[in-house]
Amino acid sequence: MRILVVGATGTIGKPVAEALAARHEVVRASRHGDFQVDTSSRESIERFFAAVGPFDALVSAAGSARFKPVQELTDEDFQFSLANKLMGQVNLVRFGLSTVREGGSFTLTSGILGPHPMPGSAAISLVNMGLEGFARATALEKPRGIRVNVVSPPWVTETLVELGWDTAPGLPAADVAKAYVESVEGTRTGEVLDARDFA
Amino acid sequence: MRILVVGATGTIGKPVAEALAARHEVVRASRHGDFQVDTSSRESIERFFAAVGPFDALVSAAGSARFKPVQELTDEDFQFSLANKLMGQVNLVRFGLSTVREGGSFTLTSGILGPHPMPGSAAISLVNMGLEGFARATALEKPRGIRVNVVSPPWVTETLVELGWDTAPGLPAADVAKAYVESVEGTRTGEVLDARDFA
Repeated sequence: MRILVVGATGTIGKPVAEALAARHEVVRASRHGDFQVDTSSRESIERFFAAVGPFDALVSAAGSARFKPVQELTDEDFQFSLANKLMGQVNLVRFGLSTVREGGSFTLTSGILGPHPMPGSAAISLVNMGLEGFARATALEKPRGIRVNVVSPPWVTETLVELGWDTAPGLPAADVAKAYVESVEGTRTGEVLDARDFA
Repeated sequence: MRILVVGATGTIGKPVAEALAARHEVVRASRHGDFQVDTSSRESIERFFAAVGPFDALVSAAGSARFKPVQELTDEDFQFSLANKLMGQVNLVRFGLSTVREGGSFTLTSGILGPHPMPGSAAISLVNMGLEGFARATALEKPRGIRVNVVSPPWVTETLVELGWDTAPGLPAADVAKAYVESVEGTRTGEVLDARDFA
């Protein structure tokens, strides 16, 4: 398979690209690098698909959203979160649908703060749950047999270390990557894969 | 209680306002009417809260989103759906938080197409699930004891009649209204109330 990994330099994207590269041709894309894409820009996404050509699977581990108490979240925080992690990944599917090969797949990234919110996660929980709703609905339409899944990672150990937080609830990024491999190589569609179930 | 019902002229808003008016002071708001508010506009929402003054509960049954196969959904369809049903209701909470009385509540509207998507519901499923994620996270922060819930209505009988569809899966709007009354008068918070459970 020819697989595009968007966000390939990130904590999750890097081990996903490595795991898939053992058996597939992996094209690594990120904001900076060989194949560049800024997922918050529709034009950038369209240029990316035109440059990269046909592919069998796209994995997105790209996009961020703002973590703040709800009364401190500004209009800009919501706009950023919606444009970036939510519509950035939605648009990878929308504009990639015409380029992906028949029977191909899209795998997006949500996160544990969707179903398990915490104080400060209002914008992130909105984005994560919205992504899952979009993916499950899109998968039902089965355009040209194309599959769509979302991986929901728990806290990633490497991120907790970076934040200086307790690493007890963390799952190492290399284990999180296994859910993405299952989504790409398996036959699931319209599913939200809790990465803890595949580690 | 003094209760604001936004979308009070709509299929669901009207019976909700009627049911609550039996025991409470209800202020009916909609795009046109005595108290006007266009929830897609931040300025309109802020003018509305300034004009309406203190309140104990806000119920929103306002906002629409676009129903189309995912490959026909345009950028404008997504922008409309996000600004209208999603951020419109999110902003009612954000900007109402400073005006609502201590221990007050917000009740928003999502819908069955969130957890149970169908072909054509990609934008609506995104919006409905996003709202539920936002509300559950916001409720956790309990600002001044304020509660936040979402009511998820099934297909409403009156809507199915209007569309000329089979009314078998429908719940009459007056029954859907009961979940809103439970959210306003009860003690629940951070919950998604499936309206079928309260009919």
